[in-house]
Amino acid sequence: METSLDCIPCFFSQLLAGARIAGAPPEIQKRVLDEFACMLPGIPLDAPPPEIARMGYSILNKTGLNGDLYKEIKRESNRLALSVYAELKERAFNSEDRLLAAAELAIAGNIIDFGAKRDIDIKKELQRIVSGGKKSIRGKQVFDFEEFKNALDEAENILYLADNAGEAVFDRVLLEVIKDLYPAKELLYAVKEKPVINDALAEDAVDCGIGSSARIISNGSDAPGTVLRLCSEEFREIYLHADAVISKGQGNFETLSAEKKLIFFLFLVKCPAVANETGCEEGDAVLLCNLKNGNS
Amino acid sequence: METSLDCIPCFFSQLLAGARIAGAPPEIQKRVLDEFACMLPGIPLDAPPPEIARMGYSILNKTGLNGDLYKEIKRESNRLALSVYAELKERAFNSEDRLLAAAELAIAGNIIDFGAKRDIDIKKELQRIVSGGKKSIRGKQVFDFEEFKNALDEAENILYLADNAGEAVFDRVLLEVIKDLYPAKELLYAVKEKPVINDALAEDAVDCGIGSSARIISNGSDAPGTVLRLCSEEFREIYLHADAVISKGQGNFETLSAEKKLIFFLFLVKCPAVANETGCEEGDAVLLCNLKNGNS
Repeated sequence: METSLDCIPCFFSQLLAGARIAGAPPEIQKRVLDEFACMLPGIPLDAPPPEIARMGYSILNKTGLNGDLYKEIKRESNRLALSVYAELKERAFNSEDRLLAAAELAIAGNIIDFGAKRDIDIKKELQRIVSGGKKSIRGKQVFDFEEFKNALDEAENILYLADNAGEAVFDRVLLEVIKDLYPAKELLYAVKEKPVINDALAEDAVDCGIGSSARIISNGSDAPGTVLRLCSEEFREIYLHADAVISKGQGNFETLSAEKKLIFFLFLVKCPAVANETGCEEGDAVLLCNLKNGNS
Repeated sequence: METSLDCIPCFFSQLLAGARIAGAPPEIQKRVLDEFACMLPGIPLDAPPPEIARMGYSILNKTGLNGDLYKEIKRESNRLALSVYAELKERAFNSEDRLLAAAELAIAGNIIDFGAKRDIDIKKELQRIVSGGKKSIRGKQVFDFEEFKNALDEAENILYLADNAGEAVFDRVLLEVIKDLYPAKELLYAVKEKPVINDALAEDAVDCGIGSSARIISNGSDAPGTVLRLCSEEFREIYLHADAVISKGQGNFETLSAEKKLIFFLFLVKCPAVANETGCEEGDAVLLCNLKNGNS
């Protein structure tokens, strides 16, 4: 998916939020925005938004705001999500259609995002999901669940692309349901190599308990999505040989939507640009198969 | 009020909306954003937001997107607002407290704004106001109505600073109530000299029927607010000698909030920066006297 001009104001908002999270004083916050502004005329709009966002986040590092800015937020997200893990698991495993219930929960968990949305109350959102039942998922104009189920039936190995910390607990429930349904299949869970926003790293995947059902791997990159040419060669090999890919979050959708490979994008629509791209509304839950309409 | 760093993404959104309204193709839209981005490092954040926004809008002109971009939108706003004028007037004049009712309506009419909010449905908003009665006004944490009433009692001449086209019909009702209560007072209605967003020009004030209760004057400027040093000397004289000023909209608040003069700011809070400045929430109706707390 190409970058929309509507993404430009959002890049500035994201960077400002990042600089603030990093505890930068206002003059440094302004300098970060100024530096990104100076890059703007040279920015290639045919690149997907996370690639441009990554250029912005690199300014935060250059400006001395190094390190894992969202570390504490991620840790807290993991902790809070783990506190509802038993309820999530019970809900999924007690459902008539376990796979559907777990997929819906995995999408609902995509709310834990400090990129596209910057002022979420995780505790409140988790409460909403846990108590909301069916109502915690809305939209579903694009929900290719039959294709998803069929693909899992057929795939021998499945690559799961993580999005955010905390959200990984929801991914765990989906992975556990898949593991239960298909004990022989190989499940890989790919996280980012280096910190970017609140995207899950290997340590988050471990903390959230992914390890019992899937092998945790790194994609070798710090783009807030999956920019294949920035990923490690090792990851690209794995990606190439995956029979089916489960991709979480807008960032992975934005960077992989044009791929000619069987990918299932599970995410909440969080901005007008992606709403426009998918024909959905902001807030909608999406399960989108990119090869559904003969797009192969 | 100084420009907040939070205003920066919003400037880009406003400019993009303006370029689109002008019918510019995407490459020109991008060039407008690029030019503003290049200006960003030199922008003085101690200036009020409308002054910076004006610098942005001047790029639209420079880029060949000349003229009155929002002319059709303004004309349609005037037409739609005039279609409910009789109802608005009846509501105000049949109220127990006519001045209060008319002031509330004038604030409600501030919804007709293509600067801070860019995708409003005027027809729907007007319907909401007309049918909503008291409910069309919410918030009112800051509502210095007693001070407002006392100031009008005492003032011999009153300067009313317009904001948007269409909204002028709501201003007209307030002006008519004031004229009815105080037939001897001089009422001046100041509009922008040149087009900026959908701000009212003299022709809009005339179309909306302001002429029967107030004298229409120009402030000599095209800033989306009242930047006194950019206004004509004639206007500054009038401003200086006004006993009380009624100021509509966020733009006028942002540019005049630090003035040591009796000004009543009537507006809807439309962004986090102004919400923060006023201690209100977005969507709140505000009637704020800037000299209330010994701020003289």
